[in-house]
Formats: sequence, C-alpha cells, structure tokens
Amino acid sequence: MRYLTAGESHGKQLTTIVEGVPALMPLTSDEINESLLRRQKGHGRGKRMQIEKDLVDIAGGVRHGYTLGSPIALVVKNDDFKHWVDIMGEDPIDDDKKIRRVVSRPRPGHADLNGAMKYGHRDMRNILERSSARETAVRVAAGAVAKTMLKQLGINVVGYVNEIAGIKAEEYPDLSFDQKVTISEDSPVRCLDPEASQKMMDAIDQAKKDGDSIGGVCEVIVEGMPAGIGSYVHFDRKLDARIAFAVQSINAFKGVEFGIGFEAARRNGSEVHDEIIWSEETGYQRRTNNLGGFEGGMTTGMPIVVKGVMKPIPTLYKPLQSVDIETKEPFTASIERSDSCAVPAAAVVMEHVVAFEVAKAILEQFPHDQFPKLKKAIDEYREEIRCF
Amino acid sequence: MRYLTAGESHGKQLTTIVEGVPALMPLTSDEINESLLRRQKGHGRGKRMQIEKDLVDIAGGVRHGYTLGSPIALVVKNDDFKHWVDIMGEDPIDDDKKIRRVVSRPRPGHADLNGAMKYGHRDMRNILERSSARETAVRVAAGAVAKTMLKQLGINVVGYVNEIAGIKAEEYPDLSFDQKVTISEDSPVRCLDPEASQKMMDAIDQAKKDGDSIGGVCEVIVEGMPAGIGSYVHFDRKLDARIAFAVQSINAFKGVEFGIGFEAARRNGSEVHDEIIWSEETGYQRRTNNLGGFEGGMTTGMPIVVKGVMKPIPTLYKPLQSVDIETKEPFTASIERSDSCAVPAAAVVMEHVVAFEVAKAILEQFPHDQFPKLKKAIDEYREEIRCF
Amino acid sequence: MRYLTAGESHGKQLTTIVEGVPALMPLTSDEINESLLRRQKGHGRGKRMQIEKDLVDIAGGVRHGYTLGSPIALVVKNDDFKHWVDIMGEDPIDDDKKIRRVVSRPRPGHADLNGAMKYGHRDMRNILERSSARETAVRVAAGAVAKTMLKQLGINVVGYVNEIAGIKAEEYPDLSFDQKVTISEDSPVRCLDPEASQKMMDAIDQAKKDGDSIGGVCEVIVEGMPAGIGSYVHFDRKLDARIAFAVQSINAFKGVEFGIGFEAARRNGSEVHDEIIWSEETGYQRRTNNLGGFEGGMTTGMPIVVKGVMKPIPTLYKPLQSVDIETKEPFTASIERSDSCAVPAAAVVMEHVVAFEVAKAILEQFPHDQFPKLKKAIDEYREEIRCF
Amino acid sequence: MRYLTAGESHGKQLTTIVEGVPALMPLTSDEINESLLRRQKGHGRGKRMQIEKDLVDIAGGVRHGYTLGSPIALVVKNDDFKHWVDIMGEDPIDDDKKIRRVVSRPRPGHADLNGAMKYGHRDMRNILERSSARETAVRVAAGAVAKTMLKQLGINVVGYVNEIAGIKAEEYPDLSFDQKVTISEDSPVRCLDPEASQKMMDAIDQAKKDGDSIGGVCEVIVEGMPAGIGSYVHFDRKLDARIAFAVQSINAFKGVEFGIGFEAARRNGSEVHDEIIWSEETGYQRRTNNLGGFEGGMTTGMPIVVKGVMKPIPTLYKPLQSVDIETKEPFTASIERSDSCAVPAAAVVMEHVVAFEVAKAILEQFPHDQFPKLKKAIDEYREEIRCF
Repeated sequence: MRYLTAGESHGKQLTTIVEGVPALMPLTSDEINESLLRRQKGHGRGKRMQIEKDLVDIAGGVRHGYTLGSPIALVVKNDDFKHWVDIMGEDPIDDDKKIRRVVSRPRPGHADLNGAMKYGHRDMRNILERSSARETAVRVAAGAVAKTMLKQLGINVVGYVNEIAGIKAEEYPDLSFDQKVTISEDSPVRCLDPEASQKMMDAIDQAKKDGDSIGGVCEVIVEGMPAGIGSYVHFDRKLDARIAFAVQSINAFKGVEFGIGFEAARRNGSEVHDEIIWSEETGYQRRTNNLGGFEGGMTTGMPIVVKGVMKPIPTLYKPLQSVDIETKEPFTASIERSDSCAVPAAAVVMEHVVAFEVAKAILEQFPHDQFPKLKKAIDEYREEIRCF
Repeated sequence: MRYLTAGESHGKQLTTIVEGVPALMPLTSDEINESLLRRQKGHGRGKRMQIEKDLVDIAGGVRHGYTLGSPIALVVKNDDFKHWVDIMGEDPIDDDKKIRRVVSRPRPGHADLNGAMKYGHRDMRNILERSSARETAVRVAAGAVAKTMLKQLGINVVGYVNEIAGIKAEEYPDLSFDQKVTISEDSPVRCLDPEASQKMMDAIDQAKKDGDSIGGVCEVIVEGMPAGIGSYVHFDRKLDARIAFAVQSINAFKGVEFGIGFEAARRNGSEVHDEIIWSEETGYQRRTNNLGGFEGGMTTGMPIVVKGVMKPIPTLYKPLQSVDIETKEPFTASIERSDSCAVPAAAVVMEHVVAFEVAKAILEQFPHDQFPKLKKAIDEYREEIRCF
Repeated sequence: MRYLTAGESHGKQLTTIVEGVPALMPLTSDEINESLLRRQKGHGRGKRMQIEKDLVDIAGGVRHGYTLGSPIALVVKNDDFKHWVDIMGEDPIDDDKKIRRVVSRPRPGHADLNGAMKYGHRDMRNILERSSARETAVRVAAGAVAKTMLKQLGINVVGYVNEIAGIKAEEYPDLSFDQKVTISEDSPVRCLDPEASQKMMDAIDQAKKDGDSIGGVCEVIVEGMPAGIGSYVHFDRKLDARIAFAVQSINAFKGVEFGIGFEAARRNGSEVHDEIIWSEETGYQRRTNNLGGFEGGMTTGMPIVVKGVMKPIPTLYKPLQSVDIETKEPFTASIERSDSCAVPAAAVVMEHVVAFEVAKAILEQFPHDQFPKLKKAIDEYREEIRCF
Repeated sequence: MRYLTAGESHGKQLTTIVEGVPALMPLTSDEINESLLRRQKGHGRGKRMQIEKDLVDIAGGVRHGYTLGSPIALVVKNDDFKHWVDIMGEDPIDDDKKIRRVVSRPRPGHADLNGAMKYGHRDMRNILERSSARETAVRVAAGAVAKTMLKQLGINVVGYVNEIAGIKAEEYPDLSFDQKVTISEDSPVRCLDPEASQKMMDAIDQAKKDGDSIGGVCEVIVEGMPAGIGSYVHFDRKLDARIAFAVQSINAFKGVEFGIGFEAARRNGSEVHDEIIWSEETGYQRRTNNLGGFEGGMTTGMPIVVKGVMKPIPTLYKPLQSVDIETKEPFTASIERSDSCAVPAAAVVMEHVVAFEVAKAILEQFPHDQFPKLKKAIDEYREEIRCF
C-alpha cells in the first residue's frame, strides 16, 4: 500500500491516490469524513477550520460501498478556492497581476526560506502553499482508509494529547481503549485527563491573547496487533522505524518515541524489558509494556504506544525577526491567518499516519488481494501464535 | 544511494552492497576500518569486542583507491566462525547434530519470541543470530562510505554520548566541531563532559557488578550542511523523517528527536523558532538552532542536531522472567555473552546511519555520477544561496 | 519522478499525481490537452472517442503557468458518468439494484477472468472498469508533462505506426524528425508511408465489417538525447530496460524491441554494431543506429528507436468462445462498445510512456529542483561530452 | 524479494544479497552451483569458461540447509584475481603503475564510450569491468534461489535457444516440460531441435573462423503458474512488464516478446485470443496459448512463454571502426578475450532473471514469511480458482 498526495493550501483541491488496498473491503465516504471532521476540531483552531468543512469525494477505486482493488482516489475540495483563483490559478497570467500577494518575507520555523533557496522561488507563496499543514487533510483521508481496514481486522487506533505547553495529563492506565476514544473525543483538546484538559484550554487562550503559540505531545495507541508484524531481518523493514518516519514527517513534529522512550536512558535494563508470561488461554503475554509494543522492529502483541512532539506552530502574531529576501531589510515576521495551538488536530493526523504504516505492514505480511481472505489469514495467524 | 546487508552474528561474515556511490571518489579501507574500530571501543563492552577486531574487505566497486561508480561490496569476516561451523554452517546436517545449542528460551527485550512466531522457527538461534546488533558493523561500514564522501564535500558528522543511566553531560555550546570529535574520541564513553564521563564509567561498572544493564542518549551533529537539502513537497522526501527512520532502525533505539525535541512541547513559539538574520558576507543565518537544523523537512543551514535514545541492552546477567517455548515452563532468561552498556558504540552506529541518509539526500539533489562534479555543484549551490 | 493513477473506465474521473517535477517549468493544460486529443484520434476508433473529448484539469502543482515543484494532480473527467452513477457510483446500494449490468462472462484476451479469480469478484465489471485502456488517458497526461519538459530541454519524442495487420510502412530514413511529426499527425493511422496508410485504413474498415479486430506495431523515436543517460552499473538502472517495462505495461502490448531488435538474431556482429567516429565539431558519433540508441543500458547519443507490438483488441463483435462463471455454460463472448483497431492511439500512448521514462532518467542524473538549472546542466553536459 | 549485485569482471569476487526470501525453505549451494555450471556451458564459449569454474559461497541467510528468512549473501570468487591484483586491486597505487592496461579505445556495441563520458573515466577499464556480462553469474545465483523456491511450489522454469544466426529451431509443441529440460540440456547450443542444433554449431564455428560473432533468440517457459499472478490495477504491477524489464536488462539483449509476440501485428483478433473452456475437473483452461500466459498483466494459468533477442556479442576479432579517446585517432576495435556466440549461456541467464521476477510476484501475493505456509497458501489458491 502506498500513496501520493497533491494540492496547495489555497489551491483548487487536495488529492490523494492510495494504491494497494485489498478488494472487497467495505468503505464509504462516511468513515473518511468522520476522520476529516475530527482533524478540524480542537480548542484553539483558527477561523479557517470554521469556514471550511472538509468533505471527501471518492473519485475512484470504490463501487457500491466496496473497494475494487483498484487505486483509490480521494479529493478534498477547497471551498474557498473561488476567492483565490487569481492568486493560485494554474493558468498563465500577466506579470503585473502576479505581483499581488507575493511573499518575500520568510517566516522563521516555516519552510519558506529554505524552500525558496532550494527551488529558486522569489515568491515564497510558491513554497508555503504546499508546505502548509493543510496537506495533512489528505494524509488523514488516506489514513482513514487504513484505519477502516484495521478496524475490520480487530485492530484499533486512537490518538490523543498528552501534553500541551508543559501541562501533562495524568496517566490513566486503567482506561479501556474505547474509553480513551470517547474521553479524548469529548475533550476540546483531545486529552484523557479532564483537569489537564481545562488547564490546556486556558493555556491556549492565554497564548492566543499573548499572540504566541504553544506545542505539545501526542500519543497514539494501536490495540489488537498480533505479535510479529514488521521484521528484524533488514533495517528498512522495522515497523517502529517506519512509524518514526511517518510521525516525524508530520508538519511541525520534532521527535518521536516508543513506550517509555527517552526515559529508557534513565532506567536499569531490569526495569525496562517486558517479561514474558504464558497461559494456555492467551498464549504469550507481557507483564508490562515499557517498550511500547516493539521488540526487534516487530510488534510484541502488546499495544503499540508511540508519542510525537509538535513544536508550537510558527505562524505567530507575536513577531519574530526575519529578513525580506528582496530588500534584505530585517522585519518582524508576516502574519498569515493561524491557529495558536494545533496539537489536538495533530493527534488526529498522527493517528492516521500511524494507522497507514501499520496497515501497510499488515498487507505486506498477509495475503492482501481479497479483504475477506486477509481477515481470515490474520485470524488464523492469531490462533497460530497463541498456540506457538 | 541504497544498501542491503546480510550476515548472522556468528556466521561466516557480514556483507553489504552499497549502490549509487559517485565515481572518482577517493576511498580506501582505512576510512572504513577507522569507523569499525571506533564502533568496537567503549567502556563496558563485552569480551567479543576484544577478541575480534573488525576489518573490512572492499570486494568490489573500488579500484586503485577510487570508486568506480559500480556498487561497492564490503565484507567483514567473523574471525570466530571457525568455532561455529557446526552450529552456523550453511550445509545440511544430521538432525541429531542440530540439537546442539538450540535456543528455546526467548529473552525479553530481544526479537527472539516475536521473530520465532513470525517466521515459524522453533530454534530461536535462527532469529537472534540476525537480530543481533552485530549487524550494525556493516551498517557502520556502509555509513563510512557516506561519511568519507561528506567529509570531502565539507560536511562533517560526529556522534557522542549525552546521557547514560540518567547521568547527563553538561552542554558545551562553545566547543568547535573538531573539539567535539577529539574530546568524545578520548572519552571511554564518548562524552564531551569529563566529569560526566567519569560518572558514566562508574555507573557502567556498577551495572556490570549488579548484572544489570543501562542505556542512554546519543547525539549526532552534522556540520557544514547547506540549506535546502531534503524537501517539503512530499512527506516521504523530508530529510528529518528519513533520519528518524534510520535512527529508530538501530537495534535497541526507542526514540529520536531533533534540536530541542520534546522540550518543544514546553516552550512558547516565540522561544522556539530560530530567527533569521542576514549579512552580505554569510547570507542568511539563524540566531539560534532550536529546531536542530530542520524546517519543513529541509535543512536550514544550521548544524543538524539529532538525538536518539538507546534502551539498556536486554541481554542481562540479572534474570528476567520468560517462558520456554517447548516446555511452556517459566524460567529466568538465558545469558549470552554481552556488554553491560553499549551506548558509546551506539553513538558511532548512529553517526554512520545519519551520515548515510544525509549523503543520500545530497546525491538525490545534486549531479552524482562524478564526484568532482558533485563537489563543484555543491560549492556553486552554497554560493548561490549565500547570494539569494 | 513518479506517478500513480486512479479511475475506472465509466467512473467519475481519471486521476494522476505526478511527483518530482522540477519547479519553474512552464506548463499549461494546452500541452496536456493536445496530447489527450491526439490519443483520441485515429481511423477505426469506436464511438466513445467521438462522444467524449478528454480535457485535463490541473488540480495542483502548477501556478500561473509554471510548475511549483509540488506534486502535480491531473484530472480527466468522464463526461458520461452521469449515466453511470447507479452502476459505478461509490455509495452502497441495495442488493437488488446491484444486479444490473453484472458481468459474469469473461472475454478472452481481457483481464476479466484472471482478475476475477485473483480478486474474488463475481461481477467482472469490477475488473474490466479498471483494466480498460481508458486508463491510458491519464498515463498520456502524465507523459505530456514529461514530454513538455523534454521539449524544453531540446529532446523530442514522437510515436507513429509502422505496421497494421501485416501491412508494413516503407522506411523513410531521410525524413527529419519534424517531418515525422507532421506526416504521422496528418495520417489517420499515424503512418509515415502514405500508401501503407491507405491500405491500413482499408484493412481497418474490412476488420470492422468482419466484426474482427487487428493489431500492429508502433515505433517511438526520441531525438536529441545526450549520450550516457541511464546506467550499466546496476541492472535496474538500465534505461532501455525501464522503457521495455513501460511499453510492455501498455494495455494489449505483447513485445518491445530496440533498434533492429529481433533482427539482431539474424545478422553478424560486424553488421550490427554501430561504429564510432569523431570530429572536433560534433564529438563522437555513430555511422549507424542499429542498436536503437542504446549500449550497456545507456544512451549512445543517437536517437532512441523503440518498437512495441499491440495485439488486436480483444473486444470483438466476432465471437470467441468463453464460459459463464455462474452457469459454467459456454457462450460466445459478450460485446462491449469497442474500436476495431486502436494501434494509432497506442502509438500516442507509447510515445508518452517512453517520454516519461526518459524524463525520469534525466531527472535522476541531473540537478532537478529548478528547471532553468536543469536546462543549463544538460547543456553543459552536452558540451562536456562533445569535448570528451 | 529484491537483490543487489556487486563485482567487476576481473575483480576479487562477485557478490549478491537477496533480501526477502521466506524462512524454512530448503536451499543448498548445490542448486545454485548447478545453475552456475549451466551458464558456463555452451558451444562457442571462450577460454575463460574453461579456466574458471564458478562456485557459490553462501555467506549468510542459510543455516543447516534451510533459509533463515534473513538476507542471503552469495559470493562467486574470481579465481583468476591473483593475476589481476595490480590491475584491479582496491588499494591506491602509484600513478606510474596505473598506466598498465589503460583502455582508451572504446569498443562499439559495449558500454565503454557512453559509460566513460557519463562517469568521467579516461581509463575505460573502469567501465568494461562492471558492464561485462561476467556480472550475470551472480544474477544467475540470485535467480537460482528463486528457481529453487518455484520448483518446490510446483512451478518450473526452463530456458533454451530458438534461433541462432537466423537458424530457427522447429517448434515441438508436443514435448513435455521435462523433455524440454533434458533435450536442451543435452544440446551444446541448448536447442530443442537436433537438426537446428547442428547447424547452429556449424554457424558458431564459422563465425569464430571469420572472427565474427552471432546472436540469437532465447525462449523461457514457466510451467505450473496459477492464474492471477501479477495485477492489472496499476501499470507497474503488471508481471509481464516486469519480466520485460528483467529480460531487457540482460547484457546484449535488444528485445522481448510474449507468446506470439510481434506476430500479433499480423493476425486477426479472432486468431489471437485464447478461448476459455471449463471442466469440473480442471476448472478454466485455454484452447491455445497465443498470448504467452498473460492477459492484463496477470497470468492466465497457461505457461508463461517469453522470448528475448540477444545481439551478437560486440567483442570481435573482426575489426569495427572506433576512435581512441586520447589521440582522437581512428582505430579498429581492441580485442578482449571473448566468445563468438553466447546465446546458449544467455538462455540460462534469461531463465534465471525470469524466475526471479516470477518468484517475486508470487511472494508479493501470498504470505511469505514461512515457506511451508507459502506452499500451503498456493495450493489452496490453486484449488480455489479451480472451483471459481
């Protein structure tokens, strides 16, 4: 399974093609739209989220509610494009018109300057329109296909927020997976801890007032994974490495960790590794899940637990110093319409890119032409390793 | 540039083929052997490191000290194989001989159990021989080719240790790159902070005494990178994501972060983003490097700063509980010859896998058939972005 | 440069995303539409070609007539979809409605039966909608981007028809490239030989009358290629092999050959190899071009000459025997609306898939972020090898 | 499944790493050596084939006669290297020593000149050592792993010679697969037709006497393939296209065709397509196999039949004109030790590269971690499509 995406932030539409999805899998736009909607929610989102409601158009690969096995094309239109035709249209225009909305002032923390130097653009709109996190809408759409598939295989994925601006959620180890889904969905900041939720909202409001922005830590859990997905035999087949790739590739993410993550540097080995137990009924299990569901690049059968850190979004009202690339004069960074905190949305994005990698690894390992056979194969495998 | 590796820990040899190296690049086994040697050093390494000194044999792709443009084959023999022929030989043997050294007891924290279930091996030696960190020797060899290339392009890479068992090194922001190389090389734990070095050694000795193991945090710095390497245009072309992949794929690594990394969740945006300044002489620069040299998946021109966390190696003398897969009886985990702390070696491995990804990204961006032309193209690009 | 396509024959639209196109390259829908139009022409096309005129919508990656460096999304709507919503719509429908237009009769020569067995579809419409040559419309669109790029680099590509139903065109070695373009464009069967053109049209008319279909041989020429594109260093980097792949992947193609191709089995080596000559003015040249522009998987600087054979399209009015998969009763194959000869269109498709591979190889070899720099680099390379 | 190769013709060794082979598959060096031996045979081979007998060393991935699931490293030593250390050694040498055996005279038909221009080598030995067909030895070794796997899955592959220097073998449609194996093996030119065999040998002898070389056509048959391997859903998943790629990538090949191939341009559709019949016992079958076992890029269940054409090897005793790249003086091409006809060997190479692609496609489609499970899955699939 693989996908490509296209589309600019204020362009006509976002597009993705997802190739390699099994045939005969139930899939409707409802599941995808639900994911798109979840991405748009969250305390602290800017106005655009309220203006435009993302809806997917399935433009290929699905017929009568089932996948065909053909590539799936997903389109998310930008409703607002009508106001941007002159600025973002694909047709050649007169040079004098081009001047409008030229961006010559790179914003620190964005791709603007480095992208402009790389691609030779003097109008950095050519960069920021694509480097914008708007593109994550179709990454979510692609991931929603994966999530729908996983769900039907008994594998569930959820993303929520652990920390915003230094406010950390309490750990609630006793929450069931479903509870995590429900509680995070109900929280305006996708946080499992009600008290922290409130503090996070306050911090977001304060940041907005200050013209500043704040980041945070998202966590994604994948429950129901059988052991042995991914592989140790070659470094580029390790599933945790692929997930790290996917998470780090999300706009504004600066790090990723599995299980106890960086805390592993502070504990003794005897306090880190997850002891193996066995019972006739369940097969092999682990007493703990410090390693976040991975050993040797493969799943252990315990839930995958992965965290990613998002930096504060760099589009600030509070000015940062930069330099106009035409005049070379210093200025304080230009302002695009923006959110002050996008961490709750990022948790949804992260959930979906993780789901994609997990689904991809499953498809590589099991027969994947026909969805019902895939489902059967995984069930058999589950039984097989239970009796191993 | 791409590579495959093969070889088991106690097999005949480790092999890698590196395809896509430019022609006419000076390369000798000396550079590679130096990297291999550095990987074998470090306070707390087990006996095997003293027994076997890894030496590379360049078995293709290099002639008279220069690369041909052909794939480069690198071989590291396992000197000890002569004692392992019966156990690890490729030829069929009688079933009664096979019993010897069968491993039926999976070690927590290793690939043993999950790998066995995945691949259907009842003798987990079939897993552990490949999942062993021994394989990192040829990843270092492949990375040494990349490092040699980068060095000749004015790009330098070094890895060192920031933290072991909770003991953190002081930051020495004023050290030059060369000083970092020299000081870390002189430290038995590859640490820039002499005081912390000593404490780390003590902790290692104590862990050994306790039959326990300890992990730590490695940091790799890439200096001399021009801005604009990598790309934001498609998520799988982001260089930081590729580096995250490479680091996470190192045996026993559990996380990776760039610049201030997870700390970004605790600061305001105005304290995170690296302001842009400009002078005629140097072109664009940043006041700070909180983002670790990356914006939008591209380099900013500041040094790449990436950290990776290594868990304590799971081969313990202190027992962890596990289950024999034949008898289903609980036992306390079996002991293979082992190090108590491999973090200093891991820093060298990390240095080399990062170097590989960086070199690969450079080759994708610049003309790469002939090394002298590559060098010229990068120099021109540097000048171009200085004057952008 | 890479691309994915999606879309079914009677679905909403065809979509392609082309990733890896340099920034700052002039590109408008005109060039792409011209290619789409050429694909739809040709004596012997069925009615659909007259009903629907393919037009591209550039839905990302291009702004104001220039590429951004971002992925390019291209959409070709199926105007006729409004009549097919019930049959091909993506939304779930009641089971009783599904029965309409179910295809249970596999057509020999099509993907129907094998595809159905592979993907488990009992309604073979689920296969034929995607396996249809309709999809080549977006392969042409993607190829048109490549062709536009090549043209601006001084590299021109044209496809025409050499043979239909055993009628072979005379060779006209003295025609210039431009003459080949013009003459083939004016011929209703895209043939350079006027006399053969007329015979081919007669054969097509006769086949239509007989309810039969006929195939033919297409030839594509790439002129202006510098020597040394592609590589011998690893088998999967040979450009002729990649072109063979692309040509063989066109619907209904059964073979591909370069230069004298299979004739090479009948000549002595002294009559096959292209002798090397040199002059100060032109550098190295060849006396002949028997090898079709390739030695060692690399271009020789002579035009690339590649032929592909297309089988007669398998959708016949003249019945072929097959078996209904539900009743297991023999029948004579069902009839879908069809052309009796699609070779002229296939020549256009082949032209575009070859263009894509050639452009891709060029981008791999030269700096490709900025189009003007790419152009400069190729010009410099041309001069360099002239003086080699 | 994927592989990389390394090694120069007179270098130390040839190496390949094959990644992605299932675990628990019986594999010994015997099968690989048999393939290597077959590649070295054939009337008309030069002296080198008699001097050096290729033997494989399995240097990883196999233990006690079974695959581990780890990457497999295969090494074929060049026995003669000891005489070439000065010329081909990897260590730097004094410039005055380098002069020896410098090749400044490009041979028409070889990669020499184009490769030199591309990579900037003035000593074309740097090209010819890698572009030599010597490399096919390890491609055969990698293919032998695939062939061994296929055989155990009930899929057999054989290559033989259909034509040399215009002498065509009679078709023997009644020969069983095993007979084809035996007869071709017994023929010094790997030809099924004894009369043609003799004429081919005479032609080879005559060519040798004349200092000329001759080419031919090889055919590979894959018997036992279930229907539905490969896919039509995306152009790059078509198995025939991948095979075309692999065949065209063999040194000196100039074309490839499936089934009746180019003859399809001369027949009516009603004479080309393979009618579908069905019986309870066998399921679906075809009356004919004109399409060579492929429809829509997928197998039909009939044998795969693919032909490739090899040009006469360009290393001639009979001179061709060329130009010295240092003096720019014309000369008649230099002579390296050579065969006058390599078509019989090429048939073995082609057999193995086809086997690799077929095995790869099978592994993509079926569960491939454990060989016994793969075998079971294919058997089940065979039954399933029989009852479809």
